[in-house]
Amino acid sequence: MGYVLYDLRAADGRSFSPFCWRARMALAHKGIEPNLRKVRFSDIPCIGLGAGTVPVLQHGEAVIGDSWDIALYLDEKLPDAPPLLASDDQRQFARFLHHWVSTQLHFQIFRVIAPDIWDRLDPMDQPRFRETREKRLGGAKLESLRDNQGVTVKELRSGLAPLRAMLERQSFLGGGAPAYIDYIVFGALQWARVVSPVALLEPADAVQCWFERCLDLHGGLGRAETATP
Amino acid sequence: MGYVLYDLRAADGRSFSPFCWRARMALAHKGIEPNLRKVRFSDIPCIGLGAGTVPVLQHGEAVIGDSWDIALYLDEKLPDAPPLLASDDQRQFARFLHHWVSTQLHFQIFRVIAPDIWDRLDPMDQPRFRETREKRLGGAKLESLRDNQGVTVKELRSGLAPLRAMLERQSFLGGGAPAYIDYIVFGALQWARVVSPVALLEPADAVQCWFERCLDLHGGLGRAETATP
Repeated sequence: MGYVLYDLRAADGRSFSPFCWRARMALAHKGIEPNLRKVRFSDIPCIGLGAGTVPVLQHGEAVIGDSWDIALYLDEKLPDAPPLLASDDQRQFARFLHHWVSTQLHFQIFRVIAPDIWDRLDPMDQPRFRETREKRLGGAKLESLRDNQGVTVKELRSGLAPLRAMLERQSFLGGGAPAYIDYIVFGALQWARVVSPVALLEPADAVQCWFERCLDLHGGLGRAETATP
Repeated sequence: MGYVLYDLRAADGRSFSPFCWRARMALAHKGIEPNLRKVRFSDIPCIGLGAGTVPVLQHGEAVIGDSWDIALYLDEKLPDAPPLLASDDQRQFARFLHHWVSTQLHFQIFRVIAPDIWDRLDPMDQPRFRETREKRLGGAKLESLRDNQGVTVKELRSGLAPLRAMLERQSFLGGGAPAYIDYIVFGALQWARVVSPVALLEPADAVQCWFERCLDLHGGLGRAETATP
């Protein structure tokens, strides 16, 4: 029984959604190569599985429409593969990181790359993206974010300080080996790498070094997606 | 062999240091009532144990001069008491929270309460506190922070979103029971409670409800320190 993963695509077919990247890394962590079905934002209502967002994982009768639930599902179905969430305590940490990324890191990255996302979206997806995101920005134009990029990149780098402090002393957030907590943050930086030419981090930043390690995981799955130069 | 804890005191003798509160809660968690030695900032060089900061824990020949190391030491020496850091995974979570609190939460609280800290310091400690802290603020007067309190309190509340999301669904950051990860954040809010009359949080905020639970722990150790009304 195969796994089907619905994944968000840019106009050129590349995958950029941070949440979808979490799911793709989680599947690879379990040694699974899913049947990828790439959709645009505009296609999501047509998937026909009742999902309002992607990723959506379909596995036989099961339909899981949230990246966190996908991780739990994979750990439950594949207990013999390396765990994504190795213990209740790691799950607590993952839950905190999930909320930290959702409420802080994603927004800090969004403020830097939002105009680049728009540039790369399928034309079908562009109007709604602009409308919903400019509302979040209090009505400001997406393009106006470029004027402030010097400041927002600096704030993003400073916001990554707690990760940096850990990654200066260990290879992965999970310790010596990657775990779902790594993929939660990886998704955010991969989102930026795929859609934006802005260098979010200095090459020697411990967070960048960790990100490069993550790009090489699972046969270079993340690196195989071309970066925006 | 008793435990001696060097703790920072305000002019009126109350304990307010966030790091010292972590150590006091950690000791109480282990069922230990230390011999408290309250010092001012200015007294630290005179403790005579080579410490540059407090808390300092003295236990026989052992001198531990960092709140994190104190937690590790207590877990090592008292393996039969409830653990502060129950597993390697919880230690990773604690490490991340430690860095998150140090680099973000403490600064967000400091911007709200710094003038109140100054008001309550022993006069011996005031000049150096003003000098070092105003340097951190780029030369701005401590008192100037009061002008912006509406904004900084709002930013602090928003910065607590990842904790709030967890505490809406569980009693403690450790899950059903408190752990060192709780004390890391508790110390920060207790710091504000002891020195400042500003209400950092709304009474119905899940973070405030959790903080109230923490104040009641270990026979109400935290609540026994009078709040600034």
